[in-house]
Amino acid sequence: MTEALRVGVAGLGTVGAAAVRMLARQAEALAARCGRKVAVVAVSSRDRGKDRGFDAAGLRWFDDPAALAGWDGIDVLVELIGGAEGVARQAATRALESGKSVVTANKALLAAHGMELARLAESKGGALAFEASVGGGIPIVKTLREGLAGNTVTRVSGILNGTCNYILSRMEMEKLSFDDCLADAQRLGYAEADPTFDIGGFDTAHKVAILASLAFGTAIDADAIHIEGIETISLADIAAADELGFRVKLLGVAERVGRGVEARVHPTMVAKTTSIAQVMGVTNAVTVDADAVGQLTLVGPGAGGEATASAVVADIADIARGVRLAPFGLPTASLADVERIPVQRHEGGYYIRLDVADRPGAMAAIATRMAERAISLESIVQKASHSSGARVPVVLITHATTETSVREALDRVVADGFVSGKPQLIRIERA
Amino acid sequence: MTEALRVGVAGLGTVGAAAVRMLARQAEALAARCGRKVAVVAVSSRDRGKDRGFDAAGLRWFDDPAALAGWDGIDVLVELIGGAEGVARQAATRALESGKSVVTANKALLAAHGMELARLAESKGGALAFEASVGGGIPIVKTLREGLAGNTVTRVSGILNGTCNYILSRMEMEKLSFDDCLADAQRLGYAEADPTFDIGGFDTAHKVAILASLAFGTAIDADAIHIEGIETISLADIAAADELGFRVKLLGVAERVGRGVEARVHPTMVAKTTSIAQVMGVTNAVTVDADAVGQLTLVGPGAGGEATASAVVADIADIARGVRLAPFGLPTASLADVERIPVQRHEGGYYIRLDVADRPGAMAAIATRMAERAISLESIVQKASHSSGARVPVVLITHATTETSVREALDRVVADGFVSGKPQLIRIERA
Repeated sequence: MTEALRVGVAGLGTVGAAAVRMLARQAEALAARCGRKVAVVAVSSRDRGKDRGFDAAGLRWFDDPAALAGWDGIDVLVELIGGAEGVARQAATRALESGKSVVTANKALLAAHGMELARLAESKGGALAFEASVGGGIPIVKTLREGLAGNTVTRVSGILNGTCNYILSRMEMEKLSFDDCLADAQRLGYAEADPTFDIGGFDTAHKVAILASLAFGTAIDADAIHIEGIETISLADIAAADELGFRVKLLGVAERVGRGVEARVHPTMVAKTTSIAQVMGVTNAVTVDADAVGQLTLVGPGAGGEATASAVVADIADIARGVRLAPFGLPTASLADVERIPVQRHEGGYYIRLDVADRPGAMAAIATRMAERAISLESIVQKASHSSGARVPVVLITHATTETSVREALDRVVADGFVSGKPQLIRIERA
Repeated sequence: MTEALRVGVAGLGTVGAAAVRMLARQAEALAARCGRKVAVVAVSSRDRGKDRGFDAAGLRWFDDPAALAGWDGIDVLVELIGGAEGVARQAATRALESGKSVVTANKALLAAHGMELARLAESKGGALAFEASVGGGIPIVKTLREGLAGNTVTRVSGILNGTCNYILSRMEMEKLSFDDCLADAQRLGYAEADPTFDIGGFDTAHKVAILASLAFGTAIDADAIHIEGIETISLADIAAADELGFRVKLLGVAERVGRGVEARVHPTMVAKTTSIAQVMGVTNAVTVDADAVGQLTLVGPGAGGEATASAVVADIADIARGVRLAPFGLPTASLADVERIPVQRHEGGYYIRLDVADRPGAMAAIATRMAERAISLESIVQKASHSSGARVPVVLITHATTETSVREALDRVVADGFVSGKPQLIRIERA
């Protein structure tokens, strides 16, 4: 049997502690599966005293993750510190520079510096593995990089943030406001004290950046992603969606358009009959469309210590087995820069909710503005107003049109003075 | 760049032809992904003349697959002949014996001789890869063998036969009889002229045998699987299921029970709200329950030339990249024989449909027989008979009980003489 693979874990939060426990619990099985032992020999964390459910007695402790990364007593650094810069980046870089392998769940780091780290891994001979960075325990990185090697992928999309899906699911199920659901999510530990990163769509965007690179063989381009969060979604939208056969989901989407890639994160109307619409709560789902396989969907836990550690340990097992693949599926020199297709060129159906003045000519003016931009309407729902005010909510569902057309039409509708407030605009995905 | 990987394809049916076309179409991408070229250099098929959509000019033809398998001009034999014995087994064996790798979609061969072939691969150094043998284009083999390396799997289950799911879906959607749907499936090429292998559950059982070995690290034991097909499912069952919130699916299930494994294939009542119930038509789905990841579900095309070839090509790409893993995730010597838990010990809810004589005492007698075996009933539905006969259909849903109890109770019900025909018994899965 080959020598044991020596692992150092930097960052002992929920995922890090779960990974250390799992490697101990599964030590025998992993040795059989990998043909060699896998052993955690060192860790790095700010707080040495805390009980994390594993025996730290035999482990070497480092206060500085970069020192652990540089220590020649480990073969693999597991980076679970988080953050695109600072110690996480420093530790990963140092480990790769010294020829070690790096396993990470850090999507922010990969979205910002994935190419640089991949080049380093390539030139120094270590592995760079990041199954845990997207979709928690769902093996989507492996599926894209290995399982679909014979395919040309045309689209990858999914529910990639459990916090957002939890909030949207609860709003729908219990008719609670966004703020109430967010407060509950924070109480239950599903959302951070500062939830901007999740609900603003930024976390999903990092994941889309990684998936797009793997799916299309392109260089990571996190800045190319159009991002909208779920903070503008109201109960009125959820109720209107329900009535029209839709459900609101925060989707991350990257698709090939001609020779370019359109990448976007935004609340989306999906038909209730689709399988993506069935994904509720903190569960994640990723769908891949590809020429040979058609459509493939993976559903599983998008977060949580054990589930994410499951992905971390799978990466470690691959390294122990001697598997060394290009981190993004291709040599970095082959990862092409690709034309960014701006969201203004997006084509699809739209859900529009307007607060319309209840006076003659309002609907005629709106319909005219739509017609001027050649936007045809699939449905129009105007509800009697329950308030005493002179405004009624109007919901329009358009047939496929372009983002530019619909935005221009809405600008004119607003200028006409019949609506109050900002029109709500939500894209519809038919897939 | 390493030398090209030389591939020989034995069997040029739908999948074989699609694989050859895909390897040509993706030649450039595969070379970049694998760091070396992958080239089909030889094929074997009975009919040389047929146009299969690829240029056969540069390929060496073999009439005898075993001769191709033994030829030293190839590194990998792709076996797509089918069948557990005969030429398929002969060719795979000869290729492995000569140190070559084998990629196959042949679940019958693996269910019967998987261990023997894995031992051969192990001793001679070739790979034995079979992603295409289960779930068509769904990467479930890779997921179990690699993606869940840190998990203890407790259950693997799924819809693994597109023909059966197509028939059951159509019966439900269009209220057509089993025979009509089967005839349509045959006309559309979804079912063979002799459909026994599919509708009898045998195809699913082969796949369950493979999945159980990968999931639990056990030796393949195809004879341990309890098999029931869908040929006894009537429109009456589908309608009663619908009314009670269920859908009928042919499921393959393997689960850990104590230190043993319970493996079974049978029509199953699944709640309409579950994600497995959403899988309609020829689509397949596999769900894995494991300690760390919780629940993971993969949904995709279970058959079709291109989708299955996608899995074949992924296996070839792994081999080209130099990945050599134990075929069933563990060295064959570590694959344990495991206690077979007979279906008589199965515990769960049951759907029972009886044709009951419309005379006093019938229901009392049935209820008494159930009570004698401590079977409690969740619901009883008795419908007015539409026919002029004196028999009414009665549907019972039991709470969890054992297979033995329910069968004994039904034997007594039959002996009491109040029911005609054989009682229909369908297991309910709650997951």
